[in-house]
Amino acid sequence: MSKKRGKQSYILESRPRVAAWASMAGPKEAAGPLGRTFDETFADDTLGQDSWERAEARMLEHTVDMALSKARVYADGVDVFLGGDLLNQIVSAGYAARQLGVPFVGLYGACSTMAESLMLGSMLLDGGFVENAVCATCSHFSTAERQYRYPLELGNQRTPAAQWTVTGAGATFLTASGDHPIRVEAVTMGRVWDLKQTDANNMGAAMAPAAMMTLKSHLEDLGRKVGDYDLIVTGDLGHVGKELMTILCKHEGIVLDERYIDCGCEVFDSSQDVHAGGSGCGCSAVCLNGWLYERMKKGEVRRMLFMATGALMSPTMSQQGESIPGIAHAVALEVN
Amino acid sequence: MSKKRGKQSYILESRPRVAAWASMAGPKEAAGPLGRTFDETFADDTLGQDSWERAEARMLEHTVDMALSKARVYADGVDVFLGGDLLNQIVSAGYAARQLGVPFVGLYGACSTMAESLMLGSMLLDGGFVENAVCATCSHFSTAERQYRYPLELGNQRTPAAQWTVTGAGATFLTASGDHPIRVEAVTMGRVWDLKQTDANNMGAAMAPAAMMTLKSHLEDLGRKVGDYDLIVTGDLGHVGKELMTILCKHEGIVLDERYIDCGCEVFDSSQDVHAGGSGCGCSAVCLNGWLYERMKKGEVRRMLFMATGALMSPTMSQQGESIPGIAHAVALEVN
Repeated sequence: MSKKRGKQSYILESRPRVAAWASMAGPKEAAGPLGRTFDETFADDTLGQDSWERAEARMLEHTVDMALSKARVYADGVDVFLGGDLLNQIVSAGYAARQLGVPFVGLYGACSTMAESLMLGSMLLDGGFVENAVCATCSHFSTAERQYRYPLELGNQRTPAAQWTVTGAGATFLTASGDHPIRVEAVTMGRVWDLKQTDANNMGAAMAPAAMMTLKSHLEDLGRKVGDYDLIVTGDLGHVGKELMTILCKHEGIVLDERYIDCGCEVFDSSQDVHAGGSGCGCSAVCLNGWLYERMKKGEVRRMLFMATGALMSPTMSQQGESIPGIAHAVALEVN
Repeated sequence: MSKKRGKQSYILESRPRVAAWASMAGPKEAAGPLGRTFDETFADDTLGQDSWERAEARMLEHTVDMALSKARVYADGVDVFLGGDLLNQIVSAGYAARQLGVPFVGLYGACSTMAESLMLGSMLLDGGFVENAVCATCSHFSTAERQYRYPLELGNQRTPAAQWTVTGAGATFLTASGDHPIRVEAVTMGRVWDLKQTDANNMGAAMAPAAMMTLKSHLEDLGRKVGDYDLIVTGDLGHVGKELMTILCKHEGIVLDERYIDCGCEVFDSSQDVHAGGSGCGCSAVCLNGWLYERMKKGEVRRMLFMATGALMSPTMSQQGESIPGIAHAVALEVN
């Protein structure tokens, strides 16, 4: 039987295993509601490096190392590292790949990278190519601000719809077999959607349509309904985007209830002055690679749809008046 | 039998088919030795758009359209589009994906993207996930210069080792079956290599070690020798990098002879004042998606190893004194 269902979903019959995971986060994330769920946190967001970019790369390297260590695997036993990040030329992932020395598939999906890497990694496992895969991503508030917005030294005021880029990294180690309870059951490849939103300070609105369309396609392709999942998780729509997502879904006849959460709304609390919530590749990565997997491991969540969402925003194109395309990939996880 | 061979190579038993291809290139490329091999060329490098970035995106869209048209497939019949480019946030590929409206896997492998997309696309086909895939990439001299180097208006002098970014796009349409003579037989996933080259004007030297290592791994993993191929093609090492590649290979006991060519040395001729040759994602893409496939179709080349090479160079990290990591992925093509 074909693995494909409908237009863009795939059933992974072999159920690739989530064998290990790790996360690392910065001081603001450590002070947030999920602070205790991260494997490591740090107070100095330079991590002792001489630039934030080097700190971000170091953070990703260390997080991948932690995941491998938990899986009791040396880097030379890793078949493939799939990763990317928000920095131009995905340098954090590139430098982590250089350090690891394993085959590397560089991805760019903006904040959808955690789902994109898990999706492709699971497919390479299910297709019988690799025995294992490391899927990882990261973001850093200070590198993202200066690359995408303004120098931090300017002290620009942030708009109400703005989100706060999570300083954090997450890594999942997938294996083809083994007695690991959390498994990847299906994936849905996202399409790019753009409803002509041009405000670079409102990423939630740019991504919500893509998230809705991926959820809709996933449910249609697989003949499922919202109630088939204990938890439906978007990446970093934030408070503005989450509300839009709920409205857009309602228009399509998909009623989202309390089983729908957004990592951008979970990672910080309202006292932390983050405006519309958390964002960045690291946002969904730190939530998944700790808190969410632990909830599955404990049996609180048995079926979860993880949809990291990406705003393919380019400062160059924003300056040229272009709108911001969005994308979301979905990974369905189940407890065996 | 497992698909994996050695550390990082995979045999694709189903032999994904190269069903159609298309290329498009700018005026300087049209005037070069391969000018007649492109499907379309243009004299105005803005393509009538109001910025070079928009022109680049338009070029990629049009090239993908041409490939689909040759394959007699509408966009809604495409299972997945795998692509990326040199621009930050891979905007050309993102906008092309928005236009196509098909499931999109965004990649970043710098100038290795043509091989990276073909490798992953072939694996998704061979793994039984998709029935077809579009693999495409592009680059544009003017967008690359202003993003990676200097504003063109400055008229900076170029160093002898500098290469000229190809303005061009290439797209390959792969299918799982069909009576198409050119087929993907094996792939080798590259690792990131960095011999601490820091000169952003010498990409060839940054990429040559990665190209050598991927070739070495490919031959070792599959128990092959150089003579098993009629043609071994690197992406855009240029004259400096090609010479280094030959020397590095010789040190490893791999003797490259006239069956080894580099797209960066083929796309322009010495009268065109391009210094060390052509470069950019578009360099290997325009050579492959026309000239090289045509040579295979005619039977001149029956077994070809295509290795696009990427310098994961970041201007931000170069300013911080970082060296330039390189990567190369290999795709072995054969005529049935």
